Amino acid sequence: MPAALSPAQEKLKAHLHTSQLLGSIHSALYFDQNTVMPPAGASWRGEQLGLLARQLHERQSSAAYADLVAAAEAELDTESHPSARRNLALLRQELERQRRLDPELVGRLATAQAHGYAVWQEARAKAEFRLFAPALQELLDLRREQARQLAEPRSCWETLAQHFEPDVSKARLEELFLPLRQRLPELLERARGIPGPEPGGWDLAEPQQEELCRQLLEEWGYDAERCQRAHSPHPFSCTVGPGDFRITTRVVPGMPLSAFLATAHEWGHSLYEQGLPRRGDHYFPWPLGDATSMGVHESQSLFFECRLARSAALAERWYPRFRNALGQDPWGDARGFWRCLNPMRAGLNRVEADELSYCLHIVLRFELELALLEQDLPVAELPHQWNRKMEQLLGVKPSNDAEGCLQDVHWSEGLFGYFPSYALGHLISAQLSEAMESQIGPLEQQLAAGRDGVLQEWLAGRVWPLGRQVNAEQLVEQVTGSALSPQPFLRYLEQKLERLGG
Amino acid sequence: MPAALSPAQEKLKAHLHTSQLLGSIHSALYFDQNTVMPPAGASWRGEQLGLLARQLHERQSSAAYADLVAAAEAELDTESHPSARRNLALLRQELERQRRLDPELVGRLATAQAHGYAVWQEARAKAEFRLFAPALQELLDLRREQARQLAEPRSCWETLAQHFEPDVSKARLEELFLPLRQRLPELLERARGIPGPEPGGWDLAEPQQEELCRQLLEEWGYDAERCQRAHSPHPFSCTVGPGDFRITTRVVPGMPLSAFLATAHEWGHSLYEQGLPRRGDHYFPWPLGDATSMGVHESQSLFFECRLARSAALAERWYPRFRNALGQDPWGDARGFWRCLNPMRAGLNRVEADELSYCLHIVLRFELELALLEQDLPVAELPHQWNRKMEQLLGVKPSNDAEGCLQDVHWSEGLFGYFPSYALGHLISAQLSEAMESQIGPLEQQLAAGRDGVLQEWLAGRVWPLGRQVNAEQLVEQVTGSALSPQPFLRYLEQKLERLGG
Repeated sequence: MPAALSPAQEKLKAHLHTSQLLGSIHSALYFDQNTVMPPAGASWRGEQLGLLARQLHERQSSAAYADLVAAAEAELDTESHPSARRNLALLRQELERQRRLDPELVGRLATAQAHGYAVWQEARAKAEFRLFAPALQELLDLRREQARQLAEPRSCWETLAQHFEPDVSKARLEELFLPLRQRLPELLERARGIPGPEPGGWDLAEPQQEELCRQLLEEWGYDAERCQRAHSPHPFSCTVGPGDFRITTRVVPGMPLSAFLATAHEWGHSLYEQGLPRRGDHYFPWPLGDATSMGVHESQSLFFECRLARSAALAERWYPRFRNALGQDPWGDARGFWRCLNPMRAGLNRVEADELSYCLHIVLRFELELALLEQDLPVAELPHQWNRKMEQLLGVKPSNDAEGCLQDVHWSEGLFGYFPSYALGHLISAQLSEAMESQIGPLEQQLAAGRDGVLQEWLAGRVWPLGRQVNAEQLVEQVTGSALSPQPFLRYLEQKLERLGG
Repeated sequence: MPAALSPAQEKLKAHLHTSQLLGSIHSALYFDQNTVMPPAGASWRGEQLGLLARQLHERQSSAAYADLVAAAEAELDTESHPSARRNLALLRQELERQRRLDPELVGRLATAQAHGYAVWQEARAKAEFRLFAPALQELLDLRREQARQLAEPRSCWETLAQHFEPDVSKARLEELFLPLRQRLPELLERARGIPGPEPGGWDLAEPQQEELCRQLLEEWGYDAERCQRAHSPHPFSCTVGPGDFRITTRVVPGMPLSAFLATAHEWGHSLYEQGLPRRGDHYFPWPLGDATSMGVHESQSLFFECRLARSAALAERWYPRFRNALGQDPWGDARGFWRCLNPMRAGLNRVEADELSYCLHIVLRFELELALLEQDLPVAELPHQWNRKMEQLLGVKPSNDAEGCLQDVHWSEGLFGYFPSYALGHLISAQLSEAMESQIGPLEQQLAAGRDGVLQEWLAGRVWPLGRQVNAEQLVEQVTGSALSPQPFLRYLEQKLERLGG
């Protein structure tokens, strides 16, 4: 057991507790905004969120808070628990970042983000990049200024990415992504030879989709005492309190598997949140109680979406239920249904991409972010470069900017450095899965036997409780015994292609 | 047009604006809590709400805020707009109240309220008043102490009631309630001779009830751009922002008209909120932009529930739709359906009471609050006195405390002085209705012609924009030309009884 908290640590913990309360109020409002708030509530909601953000920033950068951190640091000695050291190191790092930033820049960034989002919505609706270009330029300038003020021994892009993926470096990402860049186009080419899923033409009514999603969650341990589901235009997972976990999905006309897969995905995020360490002196609300990184978070959602919901064994189990729900059988057999869950065809859209092409969408964005932030790519050239890379990497070409470089929300909110976490999620999920299989046997066998719970328990015992004791790469090394590598992911894809084609 | 704001007024307004933001965040969390929050989120939600309440209290009682008020007051001169004077007078009154309270008492009250609510839930479930008695005693003691600290030239009960009904006095309420106390039992006796609604045995499925409620709201101007509906165990209306209005209902098995009437009721509350003055220098977020009083608020909800949804003309219009929704006709004709909407039978429960008996439930509570707070009624004697008065006023006797003095939540949260506003709502609604009829003709005729909008416009033009320029009695005098009186309400009930019986 960790030693009890000292008085200075208790004071600091109380401060962090209130910050968590404020942050979780922000989450509750975000959930409300995306699920039930009427449209005319938007501008007031913006003011509410802005007020909370200002309060939170002030709490995290105030002199009083700095004193609390310093007092707790001063008490550290050779007897101190390693977790206490780690918590204080992480708090110190974040405090220094907050204090290096000019509050004026913080304000200008907030304004530019809100403006960028509004302009992007219009530009995307009209499929005209030039409408968005000036806002993007401003966001890039402000983020460059932010990186300059932070003055870390890292490049601009790397500095911005730390928030999502602690300790990440460009060189390491390039190393990890190179094999993807080389092999995935080749695998995509091979996938062309595989019989595709039967042409669509079938759809499921909302109540049926709802019921299937409900059943999936029930089998995977959904607990209505602690969880809530809702609908929103974009699916998300959101933690409102230590006993209050929400996920959302949406039913997309013409895409009858979308809600089912999104439910699996968001539930993976939520299970990770539910499994983070909440008890004990050095966890919630300390940094060690937080998620390791966005990449690790995504690895968990992708595990439940791709390794479970898209598996052949699950398709076998769910085929009869989908057939009953639909009242017909457009798939012929479970194998046809499984193929339907795994289309493996390059497309223009990242969010709708399959496992094979997804990471290429990320590589493209990573390279373009580097070009924009660090290599003087003029903003006006973005659409051209985007389209060129799409053809080169995925063999498809957007017919307009809405299908192309305007498709994602991230840049409109000035989020640069986020995308690679999605790809890391695939790599981490694959490597964890290999380790899991080496210990408990093939996942497909466990799933065929209905032992989904065994897989959950494996993650719950090894991955979820680590919190921020480690970074993403350390987590992989600790749990799997090997350094992070793209090879497990590539091996998994090759095997899957083989099974889909065989 | 009112004069523009002075610099001191602008500063004060900015302060009030932020207070409104905090208050509306509280409302958003309250809405979430009662509609979607999973049970295990409760304790964290309590902490979130507590944090916001503390922030709000601090803002409303701080020296900095007092300085802002004083600076704005110092600028008042003979040229000042009367609205500016009224706003500052109301702010000063509330500020003095906040500052007279010992913060320690505020904290003890909050704890006692949370405790009281928890204990009351248990006591009610077990129908054992003695479990709740100590908590009630503590709440009474703390509220008496609060009234002592406020040191207003009013009795204890009156002091506590000011928050709900500004300027209310015991003597005036006794004067208004006496005719009710005398006449309503007699009318209830007369109602026994009226053929009751056909015995139940029918119920409506949730989707049908939902659809009927949706249609009702659509006819009454529900705008999905600004409004949202949801379900909650207890129906309520809630304003989350100047363009964000929510109402909730719930479907009660065996009570197929409950959700329909509750929808009408909560929509009345919401329309009032939507019609409060939001524009102009002296309104939102100033006090003049707030509701006049709880009694006026209730008068609007009761107008839509009783004068509209329970009217013969609406019954005529809705009878075919209910018949279609049910797929059968247990009422025989529109008149039978109308009687079903107006049972007129004394019962044990306030919330489910009809128009005839409702105010007697209030008179009982008003008298018992006075006895507890000002006349040394021992808490232990409450159940006995409650049951005695129920027999005396309503001719019915609870078989246990859950049906009796434990039925309402109010006292468990230490809310004393609130109940009379419900009865005032009935009186005000009736008196406004008489004035309306003298100008635009009988309501039943307007409703029969489908001119519901004319009634709404009448209220929207005369009642809703007044805000806190007046108190409830002044509002009635200003809008109807006469002092508030129970006679219009009694006249209305007599006529309704006659029509129901004829």
